[in-house]
Amino acid sequence: MRTIEWRDGTVITVDQTKLPHETVTLKIKTIDEMAEAIKNLRVRGAPLLGAAAAFGLALTACHSKANRKEKLLTELGNSAKILKSTRPTAVNLFWAADRILAKAQDYSGNAEELKMLVIREAQRIADEDAEANRSIGKNGAELINDGDVILTHCNAGELATVEYGTALGVIRAAWKQGKKIKVIATETRPLLQGARLTAYELKRDGIPVTLITDSMVGYVMYKRLVNKVVVGADRIVQDAVVNKIGTFAVAVLANEHGVPFYVAAPKSTFDLKRKAGDVTIEERKPTEVTHFANKPTAAQGTDVLNPAFDITPLKYISAIIHESGIYYKQDFCKFANQI
Amino acid sequence: MRTIEWRDGTVITVDQTKLPHETVTLKIKTIDEMAEAIKNLRVRGAPLLGAAAAFGLALTACHSKANRKEKLLTELGNSAKILKSTRPTAVNLFWAADRILAKAQDYSGNAEELKMLVIREAQRIADEDAEANRSIGKNGAELINDGDVILTHCNAGELATVEYGTALGVIRAAWKQGKKIKVIATETRPLLQGARLTAYELKRDGIPVTLITDSMVGYVMYKRLVNKVVVGADRIVQDAVVNKIGTFAVAVLANEHGVPFYVAAPKSTFDLKRKAGDVTIEERKPTEVTHFANKPTAAQGTDVLNPAFDITPLKYISAIIHESGIYYKQDFCKFANQI
Repeated sequence: MRTIEWRDGTVITVDQTKLPHETVTLKIKTIDEMAEAIKNLRVRGAPLLGAAAAFGLALTACHSKANRKEKLLTELGNSAKILKSTRPTAVNLFWAADRILAKAQDYSGNAEELKMLVIREAQRIADEDAEANRSIGKNGAELINDGDVILTHCNAGELATVEYGTALGVIRAAWKQGKKIKVIATETRPLLQGARLTAYELKRDGIPVTLITDSMVGYVMYKRLVNKVVVGADRIVQDAVVNKIGTFAVAVLANEHGVPFYVAAPKSTFDLKRKAGDVTIEERKPTEVTHFANKPTAAQGTDVLNPAFDITPLKYISAIIHESGIYYKQDFCKFANQI
Repeated sequence: MRTIEWRDGTVITVDQTKLPHETVTLKIKTIDEMAEAIKNLRVRGAPLLGAAAAFGLALTACHSKANRKEKLLTELGNSAKILKSTRPTAVNLFWAADRILAKAQDYSGNAEELKMLVIREAQRIADEDAEANRSIGKNGAELINDGDVILTHCNAGELATVEYGTALGVIRAAWKQGKKIKVIATETRPLLQGARLTAYELKRDGIPVTLITDSMVGYVMYKRLVNKVVVGADRIVQDAVVNKIGTFAVAVLANEHGVPFYVAAPKSTFDLKRKAGDVTIEERKPTEVTHFANKPTAAQGTDVLNPAFDITPLKYISAIIHESGIYYKQDFCKFANQI
């Protein structure tokens, strides 16, 4: 099932803030609606943000009244700016917007043809993501053995992508191969993507899943209840993987216990011109930490730190699972040259 | 301010499940009420559980109609059994109950005199805890420098003890010495003792505190925003410290970043006849993880693991702060012989 689709000039997706209790379909018709959905995490997950940005530009193209190419290019540029101001960390959004802008700028046809081109390119980005995830799943499944218990953090599933998922794609592929695996999902505070989305996806698909709080990762490692970790990524730079807050702690604990730590991500997540120090870590509003379901948990006025992502240096990562193959720690340099 | 007090045959304390939004005074009159309060975490924190158990037996003694010593001893034994069935991990509860039972059994006076003895001994246990915490604070403050940023997990404060706190006692003492320190408090899922109690206590006392989710400990270490960790303990055995779930991850992350990791605990927390493998880790109900403020966060029927404590091997602990002094890693053997 596709998490995001283009249907007659409208982008169809599901409001992920309402899951798993309600399945509310979003019909997004404008770039501002798309930006709002991204900012408020109705649409989230690095690869999905790439497709969402692409479809955002497709909305601009589709509904534009521009009859001159230059005018349309300006409108697309403005829309890209709006998209890029939503969330700074996941690179896929920037990657998709820039890919479409570059293609549009190079195009020699007229305005009407350019509109079609943008819509087709957005569709291609979505299709490529779906395909990449299947390949990631197939490649990653080779790392998974019958009987494995796999820990995952946040949601790198179908809902974080156009289809199938990255980290959960690996788990799905292994499960489909008949490997009897189990998953431990961290709830992923503050926004509970693990509890709300990952546990829900896996349960729905019949894959055994046990939910824990983020604070229990050390315990399950100590008790040897986990023998592999697979997570997704929001941005992979030269020296680190940037992913949902809490990932770094999982990586350090996995290393301490000799548990392999795998990162599954498609090419749209790679940003190998940059290093960890160049990445802006999104700082979100304090009420995500001090409140829960609109109820305060801490005393009023409590100071808060709320980074949405953290940085895991490559030395903690056993292998990266990519649509083109598995790249082990010792081959990261080679890999960097191939992307 | 005392967290727990004996007043004319009633135990006065505050319902910690209601903090920080409401301050509800509990007036506990029977052993069953005390057991209910402990089970449901209205009264919590290892040293406070010692005093609560002691006062629980004092309630039995005070309200007993027994006029024969043997009858009273039987009643005290039954009450101790009820107390010991509430929560298995914090050793202070067992320590206090056994101390009073042993004292009662050795006593040669009559039933009325024994009732007084039990009440006096319970009061002594509470007084000793208050005094121990002041000493822990004084000893631990030597480890704290002006400008330190100290991370603490869960609540080892005034509310976890009879008075002053263990880990927060160290912080309070350093602050009182005029050291300009800051505290980072983890929210401590699933029951948010950090958000609800630690942030509240420190804010009330004017000590700067920043709240983070448990998943952010790796980030604040990576960013070098923390230079010391101080936590309490629920039980210290020969080879490990048993404390609130999430402590082990903090310890591993602190070690990985060369950040000293200190455990502050009074003698009632030590159980040096046992090893980590002998300790029962309390497993609490799944709804603590799947729900929040009675609202479900995960899909119905999601499997859950909910250990309330974890185990940190001694090798991760830089020093133990005790009322009798500071014991560094290299001296743990010596220390074990002194207790």
